[in-house]
Amino acid sequence: MKAVSEVIATDGEARLSEVTLAGGKFQTPCFMPVGTRGAVKHLSSSDMKDLNAEIILGNTYHLMLRPGSDLIRESGGLAKFASWDGLTLTDSGGYQIFSLQPKVDDLGATFRSIYDGSSHHLTPELASTTQADLGADIQMVLDVCSALPAEKNILKEAVDRTALWASRGREAFLLHPEAQERQSQFGIVQGGTDISLRIESTQRTLQVGFDGYAIGGLSVGEGRSEMLDPVSAVTELLPKDQPRYFMGLGDPAGLVEVVGRGVDMFDCVLPTRLARHGTVLTSEGRINLRNAKFIADERPLDPAFENSPASNWSRSYLRHLLVTEEPTAPRILTLHNLAWMFEFVTQLRKSIIKGEFQKFRKETLEIWG
Amino acid sequence: MKAVSEVIATDGEARLSEVTLAGGKFQTPCFMPVGTRGAVKHLSSSDMKDLNAEIILGNTYHLMLRPGSDLIRESGGLAKFASWDGLTLTDSGGYQIFSLQPKVDDLGATFRSIYDGSSHHLTPELASTTQADLGADIQMVLDVCSALPAEKNILKEAVDRTALWASRGREAFLLHPEAQERQSQFGIVQGGTDISLRIESTQRTLQVGFDGYAIGGLSVGEGRSEMLDPVSAVTELLPKDQPRYFMGLGDPAGLVEVVGRGVDMFDCVLPTRLARHGTVLTSEGRINLRNAKFIADERPLDPAFENSPASNWSRSYLRHLLVTEEPTAPRILTLHNLAWMFEFVTQLRKSIIKGEFQKFRKETLEIWG
Repeated sequence: MKAVSEVIATDGEARLSEVTLAGGKFQTPCFMPVGTRGAVKHLSSSDMKDLNAEIILGNTYHLMLRPGSDLIRESGGLAKFASWDGLTLTDSGGYQIFSLQPKVDDLGATFRSIYDGSSHHLTPELASTTQADLGADIQMVLDVCSALPAEKNILKEAVDRTALWASRGREAFLLHPEAQERQSQFGIVQGGTDISLRIESTQRTLQVGFDGYAIGGLSVGEGRSEMLDPVSAVTELLPKDQPRYFMGLGDPAGLVEVVGRGVDMFDCVLPTRLARHGTVLTSEGRINLRNAKFIADERPLDPAFENSPASNWSRSYLRHLLVTEEPTAPRILTLHNLAWMFEFVTQLRKSIIKGEFQKFRKETLEIWG
Repeated sequence: MKAVSEVIATDGEARLSEVTLAGGKFQTPCFMPVGTRGAVKHLSSSDMKDLNAEIILGNTYHLMLRPGSDLIRESGGLAKFASWDGLTLTDSGGYQIFSLQPKVDDLGATFRSIYDGSSHHLTPELASTTQADLGADIQMVLDVCSALPAEKNILKEAVDRTALWASRGREAFLLHPEAQERQSQFGIVQGGTDISLRIESTQRTLQVGFDGYAIGGLSVGEGRSEMLDPVSAVTELLPKDQPRYFMGLGDPAGLVEVVGRGVDMFDCVLPTRLARHGTVLTSEGRINLRNAKFIADERPLDPAFENSPASNWSRSYLRHLLVTEEPTAPRILTLHNLAWMFEFVTQLRKSIIKGEFQKFRKETLEIWG
């Protein structure tokens, strides 16, 4: 079903909305943590509830291989499988598969499983039916994501194939009325950093018509300045009453920049991956907890963030657990980084309501830019 | 200070007591989880509070090397370092060191750090002052633990050196009046499976005089039948108003057998280590969650244990996380196994109060014996 964005407040292009899906509502701008194989690493669905997460990502590539989409369908879908009573979104599997350098033709992509080397073929149709089995509230259409920088002809080919796959993926989705009742399917705009291709891809994606729209193939290595104009070119064309999702973005500076260009949703493994490597998000920027200067530091990870789920423990203690490779450390740091991101987004939303978004953006860029 | 056991109920030799230390009280029989480097693997002090743990172990060997006992002393002691507001106990370091085949003479043991290969020398005096720095509520005297089976002359030599070290360890402890005010020091009885040596070691340990008493060097590979008579030989001689601690025991069958011989306290890495390997404690015995028969099993880990912190998730989901090596799995399994052990000990205590300990013991041995 169509995902409806009810815009509650705007400040320039930045928007605070409430999105309604078949399975529930959530506020945007929102950050979605990534639970690759059905769990955010080190955390459970109870933890996600404690963190007030609203919507969690699952990776179709991983879940279709382990434990398999049949098992998840029989368990009642991804959320039920993970005992998560919030919302879920599955990606199409394309992003992971393209990183494996698959054989791609108009039909689909052939790739090998990282688990057992077995060969698999993913088509836009299969991406849709697999995600119908996974049963998340939002499923993503299969697209072609080019690495950047790329020649224009490569980007154009990706846009063409993305449009072809969009039609077929949408058709497959519409063939399953039950999926359609429970799920919203989002289309994906490609085109790299090329403005005219971004416009073309947006128009062709809109022509197919989806329940919501995503921007793919950015924040994949290009500079931030190259990333922003293409974002504006896309969001200007997208309908105002449907959510816009920037795939794979999770740094505070990038986030305020694209929110300022009308984007609503984000996901990224960054905050959780950083946590596992000992890098902590704080109101003064990132800190690397492995640094020897924290050996006897009795302050919490971010003294300014009193509601951190990690505020109970000192940097000294957590550093000790981290350097001795105790698994308690990545867990507590993951909890902290996610809570920090959610708090950041909460403050971002408040700034939109108050009409102080530009001030918030500027302060964020001073620390994170 | 002397640890006082106030016996509340007995059933045969099994006793339900309340132990008073300088830092607080706890009930026995009690199971103490092991937080090797200042945290139970995958868990935090908040988790331990949620589990209603009363007393947690730390390993002197690990903590003296990383982060070092100075840092922990300066942080206010092990409990404060870990933000744990319950009780703590540190072992002497001897058990780990003896597993590294150190050079041992009457003075002490010379061993290499597993962290950086550096050479260290642990004496009974240093074991006591190091543990005074760690500041746990209970510290253990340095003893000599023999691998079993062992010739009588080896066991006798260990008993002699244990007695020598007991005097010196106790003397070192009594030289620190502040430690003595905050801490209780436990002596350790050795002697392998030899009854006469166990009696001799008990008498010599009692002669030195400690705040509580432990049985070391059992459950190290010998059969259960060989283990039990030496336990009785020791507990018969120990004062009734002080706690008795069997070091390194954590299986339900062993536990009921030694509780039935008057033992109060236990610690073991077993429930947490099993959890990390996918073995789950249930009311019907151990299950190995990696087993393919659990692929689509929608029941919780132990359907009979409704209050398990893992009751929210299915065996199918947890097995999936386990086989794909998601760190959420060992965490949830660790929570379950510890909660299960605490529930087991709670039922054991109830059986003593009701005078039904023998029935409880029999039922436990039927499943776990």
